[in-house]
Amino acid sequence: MVQPKAKAVHYKTIPAQEVGEEAPGSTISWLIDGPKDGAPVYALRMIEVAAGGHTPDHTHSHEHENFVVEGRGRVRLGDEWHAIEPGYVILVPPGIRHQYQNTGDTTLKFLCGVPVER
Amino acid sequence: MVQPKAKAVHYKTIPAQEVGEEAPGSTISWLIDGPKDGAPVYALRMIEVAAGGHTPDHTHSHEHENFVVEGRGRVRLGDEWHAIEPGYVILVPPGIRHQYQNTGDTTLKFLCGVPVER
Repeated sequence: MVQPKAKAVHYKTIPAQEVGEEAPGSTISWLIDGPKDGAPVYALRMIEVAAGGHTPDHTHSHEHENFVVEGRGRVRLGDEWHAIEPGYVILVPPGIRHQYQNTGDTTLKFLCGVPVER
Repeated sequence: MVQPKAKAVHYKTIPAQEVGEEAPGSTISWLIDGPKDGAPVYALRMIEVAAGGHTPDHTHSHEHENFVVEGRGRVRLGDEWHAIEPGYVILVPPGIRHQYQNTGDTTLKFLCGVPVER
């Protein structure tokens, strides 16, 4: 376990990685993580979804805590879809099917927290 | 323990409370918490600091994970101060003295995560 290290950087200085073929147009940047930063319990990522793109349609046993920073889209929470825009806060409970879709013309950007142990 | 509940709301719909006399001009909104939302491991708050205001100058045994949404300011991390603006991500490790100050003319707004158990 890495000891937590103080950090204050702009998120754009942190490299973005392609999420993969299940999430066309989507990248993930690990803003605060366990292995590098020593996050004690929670990791914070920035997800960026290009116009027309989406995140995986999936379900897993850990939660997400999301906050929309830029762009417009919608999020599936179980059987319901919710329109989202900057300032929206979303709790995706464990075990709930979820997906983010960009429904706008610009990049959808949102923070996505997950437990370090998952 | 409350079961986690799916949620997608704008943060401005969540009431803000005064932080207290140790943080003049500062309010806190519990966007995702343990008692109300059933956050499994992490709570997410929005801190708003009016021009000229600041958060408490303090130290505690849990970490913060912060993300600047609006405004300008600076943050103390131990003996160092860092200028911050929208898009900055900050990890305040456990046991580190820290304080946010608004150095701009508009409200400084940042997300602040904390462990539910603290």
